[in-house]
Amino acid sequence: MSATTVATPSNSTIDAIKEKARRLSVLSMMATTAAGSGHPTSCMSAAELVAGTFFYAMKFDPRNPNSPQSDRFVLSKGHAAPVLYAAFAEAGVFPESRVMTLRQFSSELEGHPTPRIPGVDAATGSLGQGLSVGAGLAIAQRMDKTGTRTYVLLGDGEMAEGQVWEAAEFAGHYKLDNLTVLADVNALGQSEPTMYQHDMEVYRKKFEAQGFAAEVIDGHDVNAVLTALDRAKSTKGRPQAILGRTVKGHGVDFVAGKEHWHGKAFSKDELAKALQEIGLTINVPPDPGRSYERKSLPQPPDFPAPAAPDYAPGKPVATREAYGFALKRLGAVNPKIMAISGDVKNSTFSEIFGDAYPDRFYQGYIAEQNIVSVGVGLAAFGKVPFLDTFACFLSRAFDEVRMAAISRSNINLCGSHCGVSIGEDGPSQMALEDLAMFRAVHSSTVLYPSDAISAERLTESMARRPGINYLRTSRPKTPILYSKDEKFPIPGFKVLRQSAQDCVTVIGAGITLHETLKAADELKAGGTAIRVIDLYCVKPIDGKALAEHVNATGGCLVTVEDHWPEGGIGDAVLAALAGAGVAPTKFRLLAVTGMPHSGKPDELIDAFGISARHIAAAVASF
Amino acid sequence: MSATTVATPSNSTIDAIKEKARRLSVLSMMATTAAGSGHPTSCMSAAELVAGTFFYAMKFDPRNPNSPQSDRFVLSKGHAAPVLYAAFAEAGVFPESRVMTLRQFSSELEGHPTPRIPGVDAATGSLGQGLSVGAGLAIAQRMDKTGTRTYVLLGDGEMAEGQVWEAAEFAGHYKLDNLTVLADVNALGQSEPTMYQHDMEVYRKKFEAQGFAAEVIDGHDVNAVLTALDRAKSTKGRPQAILGRTVKGHGVDFVAGKEHWHGKAFSKDELAKALQEIGLTINVPPDPGRSYERKSLPQPPDFPAPAAPDYAPGKPVATREAYGFALKRLGAVNPKIMAISGDVKNSTFSEIFGDAYPDRFYQGYIAEQNIVSVGVGLAAFGKVPFLDTFACFLSRAFDEVRMAAISRSNINLCGSHCGVSIGEDGPSQMALEDLAMFRAVHSSTVLYPSDAISAERLTESMARRPGINYLRTSRPKTPILYSKDEKFPIPGFKVLRQSAQDCVTVIGAGITLHETLKAADELKAGGTAIRVIDLYCVKPIDGKALAEHVNATGGCLVTVEDHWPEGGIGDAVLAALAGAGVAPTKFRLLAVTGMPHSGKPDELIDAFGISARHIAAAVASF
Repeated sequence: MSATTVATPSNSTIDAIKEKARRLSVLSMMATTAAGSGHPTSCMSAAELVAGTFFYAMKFDPRNPNSPQSDRFVLSKGHAAPVLYAAFAEAGVFPESRVMTLRQFSSELEGHPTPRIPGVDAATGSLGQGLSVGAGLAIAQRMDKTGTRTYVLLGDGEMAEGQVWEAAEFAGHYKLDNLTVLADVNALGQSEPTMYQHDMEVYRKKFEAQGFAAEVIDGHDVNAVLTALDRAKSTKGRPQAILGRTVKGHGVDFVAGKEHWHGKAFSKDELAKALQEIGLTINVPPDPGRSYERKSLPQPPDFPAPAAPDYAPGKPVATREAYGFALKRLGAVNPKIMAISGDVKNSTFSEIFGDAYPDRFYQGYIAEQNIVSVGVGLAAFGKVPFLDTFACFLSRAFDEVRMAAISRSNINLCGSHCGVSIGEDGPSQMALEDLAMFRAVHSSTVLYPSDAISAERLTESMARRPGINYLRTSRPKTPILYSKDEKFPIPGFKVLRQSAQDCVTVIGAGITLHETLKAADELKAGGTAIRVIDLYCVKPIDGKALAEHVNATGGCLVTVEDHWPEGGIGDAVLAALAGAGVAPTKFRLLAVTGMPHSGKPDELIDAFGISARHIAAAVASF
Repeated sequence: MSATTVATPSNSTIDAIKEKARRLSVLSMMATTAAGSGHPTSCMSAAELVAGTFFYAMKFDPRNPNSPQSDRFVLSKGHAAPVLYAAFAEAGVFPESRVMTLRQFSSELEGHPTPRIPGVDAATGSLGQGLSVGAGLAIAQRMDKTGTRTYVLLGDGEMAEGQVWEAAEFAGHYKLDNLTVLADVNALGQSEPTMYQHDMEVYRKKFEAQGFAAEVIDGHDVNAVLTALDRAKSTKGRPQAILGRTVKGHGVDFVAGKEHWHGKAFSKDELAKALQEIGLTINVPPDPGRSYERKSLPQPPDFPAPAAPDYAPGKPVATREAYGFALKRLGAVNPKIMAISGDVKNSTFSEIFGDAYPDRFYQGYIAEQNIVSVGVGLAAFGKVPFLDTFACFLSRAFDEVRMAAISRSNINLCGSHCGVSIGEDGPSQMALEDLAMFRAVHSSTVLYPSDAISAERLTESMARRPGINYLRTSRPKTPILYSKDEKFPIPGFKVLRQSAQDCVTVIGAGITLHETLKAADELKAGGTAIRVIDLYCVKPIDGKALAEHVNATGGCLVTVEDHWPEGGIGDAVLAALAGAGVAPTKFRLLAVTGMPHSGKPDELIDAFGISARHIAAAVASF
């Protein structure tokens, strides 16, 4: 980057940006003091970097900051929210008075940014995720040929997070030259100095090793900031990192570079002293109370019905493979659909989509956190991302999924290889906690198909459904259960065996549904009838509809799942029934209780208590 | 590292190690073919690196490979398990015939390594965690002055995981010169070539940027491997990285450097062809079936009772602060106790311990995945680690906690700032899914104190208890509820309000217990008596004991929690009651259902439906 020569900004431009930076700094101090909490010193270190980016480098429409024609800014160090809000105010998104409502119950200007605020694409505040989001935005901008750019402000504390380097290698590998990192290296973390403090060369080496053009500047020297921003814009073929050496609490002597000031608002007296030193007073009128909350957030676009799934009846197909076929069919009718895989596309079968639509498929390599947050960036730009890996490895990205929910994001995740039924690879590859994880995500839908038809239809539902959608697929091939025109509403379940003589309701999904069907046949031969339910949708559940079946079988209920007992199908069913005012009179929850190990799928399903034999025994025990 | 001059190994030594490498390679092929699955080509690329480390560099007692006097080897690329098992066999830990039981149901030699196998300290197979485990082992070796070293074999595919770089920066920062990375850079991932393929300089730059001494070698040149291992041993003040350029499937032409061979065992014919090319046949007798499963795994050591907690009654104290006091008291009587914090020691209060015992406290910076896996390494060496951050950020390390359970590890985690009661910082800082997450971990204990006394006593219990122990602490100060001599058995709960007239059992914990007590007082004034239960232990729950109270109040039950409805206290209580054969006749689960935002703690507790007012209304609704 330093090799590129750019024109020097004029003195008047530099003076104007300096003034903007002072205003951002002062408004940040004022807002946090008014709130009685927050992180003023983390804003003060970033004021020049933010002012230069917003008021010199960015194309930005304050009336429509989330439009595709606006450049994007991601505040990865989310605790510096006030400096972002101040920049929005100075840019005209909302009045300065609104910044003074920071952190109040009734204000959309929360303690950390969320997309409730115009101009914010993703929630930040769990550190180290913003560069991934920015990479997703930059990819979408490039695909849509908007000619716009994405800027990401990183703190140095958060650069200890591995995800930052997953994102950096991803951005470098895909040559995202419309992506610029601004690093606010103020050398102080929350509890003590950062690992590298002001050793700027370490950061330069790290970014350069990932394929970035990187330059170190004095982050408070506005001329240097603007020149670096110009150089970044003119850099082709590589993302850029502007590494600003800064001072936490810059501009105010009693806090500048001092420890123990992280996350502390100034008292009124301290604020007065600080403003006097800075020499700037901003008279902000009382806020009239008008909310600037975003009216519309991205929604998955509608699209024509894809071709119907097509399977030979009687030939078993793995649900994981059906997912790949479904993605390909959806890709034909919905150009917004994209897929990213964590180096397992040949196991999760997203390669079927990737082979058909290589421009919309990204190899995400083995970096699950980055993949999920890149998906959030894509979704914020109106794409419909499908993200896949083995279900157990999605646990790696739980925090990123949690933040996606706070971002009101619409992302689709597919986790394959659930449970002990994967067999010989052993417990490190078995997802036994994914249902618990995804149920405990706000706005989530949790789907668990048992055959290829339902897997395909549910994948289509995901593409239409807002929020965090999760599809749990299985490794073994399973028989086709449904006709290709069967509908799978959400919430919903299917009743596969039913008679007036049913004495127990047994609920399974995936591999355990097939075990339940086997048990039903065996029991029937012995004169015992059971009701068999395919709970293809684990969240939400229509408890009232389910309760009718439980009541019809005398309140006797068995649930069986290839998952730990906690947080999965058993818990979900009990909670749904309780919500409907119904409780089973007799209940057995069959699930994996011991730590599994390697073995053949059938050996493991039986040894860990979820095979047809165990289901029949549970029924007999009533 | 390259600056250090070391003696050249003798030709006879080189030849001996070459022969060992060939044996490791051949045994790996044979074992995977016998199993019918596995990753032979991923073993073949690493054979010389593993042979050199095991049979030239390491101090290793095959009769006691996990003793403190043995060097440690962590196979981070766990799918290369057969090459590790072959090395153990060649070293004499078990016979070669045992390697042929790979992946069988009855064998301890699982598809990926677990500590069931002698010499294995931690389960691997979820990629990118081994270097963190190795850093934990290396720290423990250094603390205990064993004079031993730790070697970690990384694959290049897994170096896309950010955690590898969290671990590398941690190892570099703490100058772990007894830690050596061996990187098997075979350029092929599972589904396609890796991001950097054979661009070895990228890896060198990355490791050097983290403070490693790094050198690039031909990973199949035994002389180069041994010389690099010697140089690594003589390097002081820095960890070392030996970056081996290798070929996946090395030595066998039809697979060497070829795509689409990942995770595929050879057929018998392919095996015969491969062995012919290598020119080595190993006649392995039938395995006699003796298990070599480790008899004893590390257990938390016993220790004398610490001083009792000491609080002025009537003065509120936050449970998060009590955790810090407890750690300090425990540190005085148990020298094995250590703590690592994710740059929040002044919020989680582990700084109280760190100030008292600086040698046993590590700043983990903002890198939660690494912190948890370092803890696994420490625990494998007999330490008792306490790991802390905000509870919501522990979701970042769910996969590492999951793998810790498969490792049969004994680690203690403390998550502070749970729920909406944190207030103004907003949802990114609120843990609302941590109970669901930790309940769905095998071997876990989930504790949730409501006052400082119980927080201290439960922290003590964690230090004595094997498995994965989780303590959920709260931000606000809460009144002292218990006398300092109160006991808190696991499982267990406390009944805080009880009378023969109780019409509903209300179960809370943390902030909601205090709201329940308020509700009880208000209801009592109106003539309604409720039973109030402090569920300080959320897992395990004694469902039978709890059922007595629910039955005593006519089956009427309210649970109230500062958590999402899914997977938390409500689900746990319903499942425990169902396990005891009891179901509530009337039930209300109060939990956070809407996406919270910033505000004052009391505003949020009320707005999101878990305050005394809502509890009283739920009771009244019955």
